[in-house]
Amino acid sequence: MTNTIANATLASVSETNRSRIMQHLYQHGISSRAQIAKALDLTPAAITKITAKLIEAGAIKETGDFEGRKNRRSIGLTLDTAEFHVIAVKFARSLVQLGVFDLAGKPLTVQELPQVTEDTIDSAIMQLHDTIGSLIEADRRIIAIGMAVPGPYLRSVGRTAVVSSMRGWQKVNFIHEFSNAFTVPVFVEQDARAGAMAQYLFDPTITTENLAYYLVGEGVGLGVIDHGNIINGALGAATEIGHVSIDINGKPCDCGNVGCLERYCSTPAIHEMILKEDDLIADAGTMTHLQACRALFALARGGDKRAIALIKRVARYVGFGCITIFNSFNPSQIVIGDIVAEAGQLLLDEVHKVIDKHVIHELNDTTAITLSALPADAALNGAAAVAINQFLDHPPQFFELS
Amino acid sequence: MTNTIANATLASVSETNRSRIMQHLYQHGISSRAQIAKALDLTPAAITKITAKLIEAGAIKETGDFEGRKNRRSIGLTLDTAEFHVIAVKFARSLVQLGVFDLAGKPLTVQELPQVTEDTIDSAIMQLHDTIGSLIEADRRIIAIGMAVPGPYLRSVGRTAVVSSMRGWQKVNFIHEFSNAFTVPVFVEQDARAGAMAQYLFDPTITTENLAYYLVGEGVGLGVIDHGNIINGALGAATEIGHVSIDINGKPCDCGNVGCLERYCSTPAIHEMILKEDDLIADAGTMTHLQACRALFALARGGDKRAIALIKRVARYVGFGCITIFNSFNPSQIVIGDIVAEAGQLLLDEVHKVIDKHVIHELNDTTAITLSALPADAALNGAAAVAINQFLDHPPQFFELS
Repeated sequence: MTNTIANATLASVSETNRSRIMQHLYQHGISSRAQIAKALDLTPAAITKITAKLIEAGAIKETGDFEGRKNRRSIGLTLDTAEFHVIAVKFARSLVQLGVFDLAGKPLTVQELPQVTEDTIDSAIMQLHDTIGSLIEADRRIIAIGMAVPGPYLRSVGRTAVVSSMRGWQKVNFIHEFSNAFTVPVFVEQDARAGAMAQYLFDPTITTENLAYYLVGEGVGLGVIDHGNIINGALGAATEIGHVSIDINGKPCDCGNVGCLERYCSTPAIHEMILKEDDLIADAGTMTHLQACRALFALARGGDKRAIALIKRVARYVGFGCITIFNSFNPSQIVIGDIVAEAGQLLLDEVHKVIDKHVIHELNDTTAITLSALPADAALNGAAAVAINQFLDHPPQFFELS
Repeated sequence: MTNTIANATLASVSETNRSRIMQHLYQHGISSRAQIAKALDLTPAAITKITAKLIEAGAIKETGDFEGRKNRRSIGLTLDTAEFHVIAVKFARSLVQLGVFDLAGKPLTVQELPQVTEDTIDSAIMQLHDTIGSLIEADRRIIAIGMAVPGPYLRSVGRTAVVSSMRGWQKVNFIHEFSNAFTVPVFVEQDARAGAMAQYLFDPTITTENLAYYLVGEGVGLGVIDHGNIINGALGAATEIGHVSIDINGKPCDCGNVGCLERYCSTPAIHEMILKEDDLIADAGTMTHLQACRALFALARGGDKRAIALIKRVARYVGFGCITIFNSFNPSQIVIGDIVAEAGQLLLDEVHKVIDKHVIHELNDTTAITLSALPADAALNGAAAVAINQFLDHPPQFFELS
């Protein structure tokens, strides 16, 4: 009568162990069966059985001898991160970016669709179908597609909410549009949450299971991992820090709320502040938000006092956002990323000043605040991370595993 | 080689299944083995084995015949909620309440320690040890103790943070002080999080796994369950909505932040507003916060226009707190509880007005906002829920289970 636990449950145990082995190989590189067994507290017999299936399915492979502990030779197992590719798609208001990444998060190719306007969304979608189709056609290593869309993204519905800066995109149901369109599976996630996954998967210095990725760019977003669980909310619209009010008597926002954080430190808000400073950046009026912000950061690096003062004003708002993150989510690390993070140390120092003044010291003392170490476009990396995370978590979606 | 999954993992599967059976019986009352097997997708053999162990340990018992489906008689199993008791302790600034509850959350006895001042904390702790000891001595059904303390409670440390309204209590490490002091285990939780568990366990109308309990009383707190997981944060200090700023130019707070929600709609804040209204409540100056608020609510129920207007002002702030909860946590139900909820429908209507104006409609349309249906003191119920939750989740902490 031992081991008569229901099949349903046994299946999920064995799926869990498969996934743990995949994740171990992903994080630690080539390992022997004995090393994996020890690290995961699994019996040698279980390891033998599960790895045999993973090898048979082509998910992992043997590397031949490698040098183990005490110079003993043993057979290594590897999850070859160069052998599997994912397509990453990042949607923004007028920009659709695509990349092909390997499993380690290394970008192999990156391209942009032509600028999208409200009137050309349908044709952009068509083109996206074609482009993705061709990429899959040309590269048999592609096993999944990850997509990152600006929040609030109603994850369980498949659409962005009315507030989004992607008004024209609201008619698009990402799940209906893409989930069955290709020969490989598609996974869609809010961009900051995707960014959090990218930080967690691709930055080897990040080891905490309590991580907040604070996206400060054209929008302001947040993705939070709490004790290893991504916080989603009922519809997937949780952690929308950009629409948490920092001033109930403040500026109105498209979402209907007032004083939304996004109105004070996103790139459009910074662009607005720049335009109010006469002659700070002569041709700011004709620049995009991104160009104007980068021009400001360059001026500050050159020592321009007004530019430095303006960045400090922005940093104060970024800091108040951090304080809300502290008190709402109590992570042990906050990674600030996206365009505004390009302001660098000047921004970070000022953020720390605000936090030191306003945060409960026990939380301040135990929380690291860092700038993203990933390429500027963490959301595109994030789209890749969303797909890779599924690959590691649910191997049976990708392989025949009996 | 089948079923050679590691023992460590098998143990946790079997623990999980035990816990699922306990929870099923807790939620559904008397059930046959066949009914449980069907509901939990377990094999009859697994049910037979696990229930035999639970019966042997005394956790559940057979009830004799009961009428099953199609009038067939079968043997029922039951988790007798009257057979196990827990002690609940609620700490507040000057008040320590104790109750004995049965597993269904029914209070059997409730008592208060004498009012505690900064100087009498040590003797209050002594008295608490004695009182709990006597209760356990007198009632052999007591199997655990749950404690609820005001946030920010550093759950992983065992202390309240510097900000807390319990300044004098900060030297007390609840874990060190109580965890090994009695013959039954002790579990400590932040009060609003305990309140969320109480709503989830004791209110049969609440079935969502995405629940926020919004405690608006002497402090303002929040407990959030996201897809069945309590959000804790790294140190256990997440979801401290009372210290999320709604106005970065607003009133300073003890925590170091400015414009904290707690400064606008807690009972001390309301008391302050009452005192500014000449003669609204003649002897408000000598009342406690609780008394002043209850006097205000009574006036409003009597139709007093100024009292009604004041409650509407408070409700606006309570509503802005809800908006932050929407955008930070996207629950499918927000339960407002504690003293301020006693203002009733007038408060709720005004909260809805603010929300209707300021919340993304997709979120507003899919989120219920209700007043707590539990006894006013949800935190004392919550302390009981914390203990009961552990009992259902981890039976081996309470029984000899091989």
